[in-house]
Amino acid sequence: MIKSLKFALVFLLIITSVHAQEWSLMPMPKEISRGDGKFRIGSDGLQVTIEGNYHSRLDANASWFLKRLSSRTTIPFLPKQGKGIRLKVNRKAIVRLGENESYSIKVLAESIEVESPTDLGAKHALETLLQLVEIDETGYYIPSVSIADSPRFPWRGLMIDVGRHFMPVEVIKRNIDAMSVAKLNVLHLHLSEDQGFRIESKTFPKLHQLGSNGEYFTQEQVKEIVSYADIRGIRVVPEFDMPGHTTAWMVGHPELAAAPGPYEIEKYFGVFGPTMNPANASTYKFLGKFFKEMTRLFPDEYVHIGGDENNGKQWDANLQIQVFMKKNGIKDNHELQAYFNGRLLKILEKNGKKMMGWDEIFQPNLPKSIVIHSWRGRKYMDDSARKGYNSVLSNGYYIDLSHNAYKHYMVDPLPDTTSLTSDEQKRILGGEAPIWAELVTAENADSRIWPRTAAIAERLWSQNPASDYNEMYRRLFEVSKHLEQAGARHISNREPMMRRLANTNSIEALMVIANVAEPVEGYRRHGSQKYTTYNPLSRFVDITLPDAPDAIKFRMLLNDYFLHKNDAIYMELSEMLSVWEKNHNLVESTIRSNFNLKEVEVLSINLSFLASTTNMLLKMYHNSKTISAYDVNSFSSIVVSLSKPVAEMELPLADDAKLILALMYEKGMVK
Amino acid sequence: MIKSLKFALVFLLIITSVHAQEWSLMPMPKEISRGDGKFRIGSDGLQVTIEGNYHSRLDANASWFLKRLSSRTTIPFLPKQGKGIRLKVNRKAIVRLGENESYSIKVLAESIEVESPTDLGAKHALETLLQLVEIDETGYYIPSVSIADSPRFPWRGLMIDVGRHFMPVEVIKRNIDAMSVAKLNVLHLHLSEDQGFRIESKTFPKLHQLGSNGEYFTQEQVKEIVSYADIRGIRVVPEFDMPGHTTAWMVGHPELAAAPGPYEIEKYFGVFGPTMNPANASTYKFLGKFFKEMTRLFPDEYVHIGGDENNGKQWDANLQIQVFMKKNGIKDNHELQAYFNGRLLKILEKNGKKMMGWDEIFQPNLPKSIVIHSWRGRKYMDDSARKGYNSVLSNGYYIDLSHNAYKHYMVDPLPDTTSLTSDEQKRILGGEAPIWAELVTAENADSRIWPRTAAIAERLWSQNPASDYNEMYRRLFEVSKHLEQAGARHISNREPMMRRLANTNSIEALMVIANVAEPVEGYRRHGSQKYTTYNPLSRFVDITLPDAPDAIKFRMLLNDYFLHKNDAIYMELSEMLSVWEKNHNLVESTIRSNFNLKEVEVLSINLSFLASTTNMLLKMYHNSKTISAYDVNSFSSIVVSLSKPVAEMELPLADDAKLILALMYEKGMVK
Repeated sequence: MIKSLKFALVFLLIITSVHAQEWSLMPMPKEISRGDGKFRIGSDGLQVTIEGNYHSRLDANASWFLKRLSSRTTIPFLPKQGKGIRLKVNRKAIVRLGENESYSIKVLAESIEVESPTDLGAKHALETLLQLVEIDETGYYIPSVSIADSPRFPWRGLMIDVGRHFMPVEVIKRNIDAMSVAKLNVLHLHLSEDQGFRIESKTFPKLHQLGSNGEYFTQEQVKEIVSYADIRGIRVVPEFDMPGHTTAWMVGHPELAAAPGPYEIEKYFGVFGPTMNPANASTYKFLGKFFKEMTRLFPDEYVHIGGDENNGKQWDANLQIQVFMKKNGIKDNHELQAYFNGRLLKILEKNGKKMMGWDEIFQPNLPKSIVIHSWRGRKYMDDSARKGYNSVLSNGYYIDLSHNAYKHYMVDPLPDTTSLTSDEQKRILGGEAPIWAELVTAENADSRIWPRTAAIAERLWSQNPASDYNEMYRRLFEVSKHLEQAGARHISNREPMMRRLANTNSIEALMVIANVAEPVEGYRRHGSQKYTTYNPLSRFVDITLPDAPDAIKFRMLLNDYFLHKNDAIYMELSEMLSVWEKNHNLVESTIRSNFNLKEVEVLSINLSFLASTTNMLLKMYHNSKTISAYDVNSFSSIVVSLSKPVAEMELPLADDAKLILALMYEKGMVK
Repeated sequence: MIKSLKFALVFLLIITSVHAQEWSLMPMPKEISRGDGKFRIGSDGLQVTIEGNYHSRLDANASWFLKRLSSRTTIPFLPKQGKGIRLKVNRKAIVRLGENESYSIKVLAESIEVESPTDLGAKHALETLLQLVEIDETGYYIPSVSIADSPRFPWRGLMIDVGRHFMPVEVIKRNIDAMSVAKLNVLHLHLSEDQGFRIESKTFPKLHQLGSNGEYFTQEQVKEIVSYADIRGIRVVPEFDMPGHTTAWMVGHPELAAAPGPYEIEKYFGVFGPTMNPANASTYKFLGKFFKEMTRLFPDEYVHIGGDENNGKQWDANLQIQVFMKKNGIKDNHELQAYFNGRLLKILEKNGKKMMGWDEIFQPNLPKSIVIHSWRGRKYMDDSARKGYNSVLSNGYYIDLSHNAYKHYMVDPLPDTTSLTSDEQKRILGGEAPIWAELVTAENADSRIWPRTAAIAERLWSQNPASDYNEMYRRLFEVSKHLEQAGARHISNREPMMRRLANTNSIEALMVIANVAEPVEGYRRHGSQKYTTYNPLSRFVDITLPDAPDAIKFRMLLNDYFLHKNDAIYMELSEMLSVWEKNHNLVESTIRSNFNLKEVEVLSINLSFLASTTNMLLKMYHNSKTISAYDVNSFSSIVVSLSKPVAEMELPLADDAKLILALMYEKGMVK
């Protein structure tokens, strides 16, 4: 019991630095200072004027800015009427690694001036302006402010796995729009997997025809995505994962594999045997033609070749490969994959591309142009940097694992404690949040990606972001609104799912549970049930969020309470707990009459008891009541038993109860 | 006062035929009878097998059926596993007017057999099956049932005006999916207007380049829409409205107009002067090339040429046209337009197409192949039929006017009272619900179209649909769920709009108002404010619905109460009224602190008072309390003053209050 209480104390470290911030921006700009006036947005209208040499994408972004601002304020902005926002741009940007994205903003009562070396900076400035808009009784306005801003890292990415579950173009496009809000600039598309090959190949049409169940991007759609991303200043980096994770390729092309086949599209998830044959000249001939076709579709200079989780079983069992290894002095499978990668590298270079791969691809013979993508641990990133290689961090940013956003937020690619030299630090290009799609569909993708990825985006953009729990979540919930207004459906796609599951429109009480429960973290959902690509992911757990909004709000309030310990906050906390306590009575009949809700019954009961227990503990704490060690143990047992996973969900409220108990220890209230 | 009370009594006629129905289907099939068993949908899976000669669209619809059913039941349906739904089809359908759409279904405990002459019938059967799915404590099932079904009219359409506000492809596609749920089979696209020319022309690129503000369908997208609609068994009928409503054409091609120009894209709404010049040979040369290009994109045999609302001003003022008329013995503008239509007809016929137009185009010289589209009144439809012409009814189905769905539902193209002969009746092809887009955007389009259009769809599909208010709405709210599950966003797009307007996620109390208020009916919104195409339509009124769901639920309950007059229903009504009465207190501070919500303050107060007044009246009625004529007059005055439009919205609850007062008169409770 004491162990779990000590665990709870960890939270205490977080709540010591709470201080009110005056901005609702995310990511926070490098420099910002507030003036006195207000730039009013009124019925006289508003227009954006652009000066200098800029790319036409800025016109599109200016229109998008006005459209979103118009919808929000309800004011029609007729062309060439009203006050102006003046953008001054020096030159056309090229959307590529390292392009200048800086900008400055000066808002006065009657004018807004934006300056930026390229149109990318001006685009970022427009996003910042939208986040600055405030409202009072007279209407909407932007406060007077001076901002100078530029990103900390040049590589700030979101990786979407369209292999395990396909995501149609409209899902990709609205996520590109959301990325623009968060000032991310790399969309990494994981295009092939054991479960699906997701892009049309005209050279080898059997790849998508037999490898995708009909769900893939046509080349026209790829062009549409690339050009849409370019407008938002976002690079598209394609990944073709090989030599492993390639079952879907082998359905149409078994000759690529190191074992004869036949192959079927994989419907389970995990690490599987099918692997490309690195000992066949024909493999490289195929890949030569393949990359010649694919590199034409993606203008970015980087191509990601995956390279992860090759279990080597097919290679071990293939006599031809064993002979090949001996003949060429290749010691083991790791060296064999290095050989394979070396051949791939030549193919990519022939097509004018640089190579990127997951950290398994690292080995010392590769040229310094490659980028190591660290997923197994930050150590692989630091090692690469020390040996002169550029790298990108994803370890710690796996947003599919249902950790709280705060956990990801605290992962810094270059923490103060880094042992890298200044030159080595320059090789850390940034990071990417990958949304692996075992448990993600087009329907719930947005709610798994947003708003949480905005916290990671701030870590990668801002120089010294606040590290405070409450402050991060306060701003995350603000940016969440902007993400929704830009088109993300992370909030609005949940209620239709609940209405469908519950077979009724009266879902208020069910949403109370869904807003306070979280999916179990890590890989534990895979443990409890064997998922396939055919699972619809339409259960209750698929509607809950990794950052349960009401649980987070309670935690924030509790943090405030521990700092200030006043009656008002106590009453508010107690009121929240009462709502949860009473909720089971409201949903009981709905749950019992609906087969698909039955798995939630125990969770709903647990929430009720847990809220009631927490309320009791909080009352004792508030009244500084002494409690016996025996009672603490009893309460702890209750909390632990109520915190057990139900239907792949957990109640983070249990941690709050433990925290209160731990504090009672600390304060000497336990006798 | 008495006059308005008499108006209220009209509702009484509606509530006399209430009787419980056992099905939740919409449209109701021709014949249906229930058996004893249940076809269980369980974890052993489900598969659809198809026999006979069918079009591949049925495979796509079977996959879509399984996907929706899987999401709803949370059960993964692995390929080739589990019980079967067997579809037997005789031949491949061609998606055209008059194609056979009939089907039969036999559901037994262990099997489901569907038979249909064409794959279109089988597709309809799958939609019916989805609406038959029920749930109990053991799980989902389809009850044993025998159905024989076929449509009453062959032309059942939805017209979307993409001219006044453009709707992107994804909006069109999800509305096509919703049309499939309602068994509609014609998507009429109103592609050109004064405010926009919405389709790429390669022959005359200035049409879309200068006439659309960049918002138009590319030809690739048109192909995508047509092929998507074909999969769902839906014809796409393009409309190019002419000679009036053509300002956007003239921006790039002023030479088409009967006055010199220059022209700008119209930003206001109404009837405008710019009209094609029917006296120029070059006009027909242009249209010849234009239709040659456009008819290739739309495989359907009909092309709609509009023809409405030509105000004739440009013609009157053009000397060349006056000379032309004299020379050719053309008496007036009506005859001149007939001449123009005659020339158009030849162009269409040359391209293998039949002509359709709004009822102004009717005149006796046209061939019998044309279709008259009646919008000014049913008389034009009947007259056309008597003179041997086919016609389609839209008068009474204008879903943009915010009338209640029930009003549209009661419009029958061929009521029992029709004076048409049996042969003439055959010329009534069906109807179309047009959503004119002055006040409709991509964001709120779904909520203006659905679920209401499903009621019109039933009128056009079913032989003898129930005409009962409660029964219609009961089933409409059921089909609304299926529409949402098929992809329509009529429910889920509203809350994001409210969150944006209110600048907070706590919108429950605001939604209470939004679910009980309705936009003012008819053209009255245009009266109160001069709208332009730049108005974002993001105000409170744009979030309310033409069928305010909670107001309708109250009305239904009130109807039940008047039939049964028992304490339980009374208590339920009273409870609903109490919620509305108390709501203003909950929203007052939110409204006051937010500039954009201020226009709603009076409405919120009115709702509170109106609910309180209605509650008093209901209590008196329930307790059979006698009331003085003086008091009735006082109550009536209060109700009338509380029912006045506020911010372009009304409270239908006022009619319920009037109804109770009228009933008190009827029952002799007024002394």
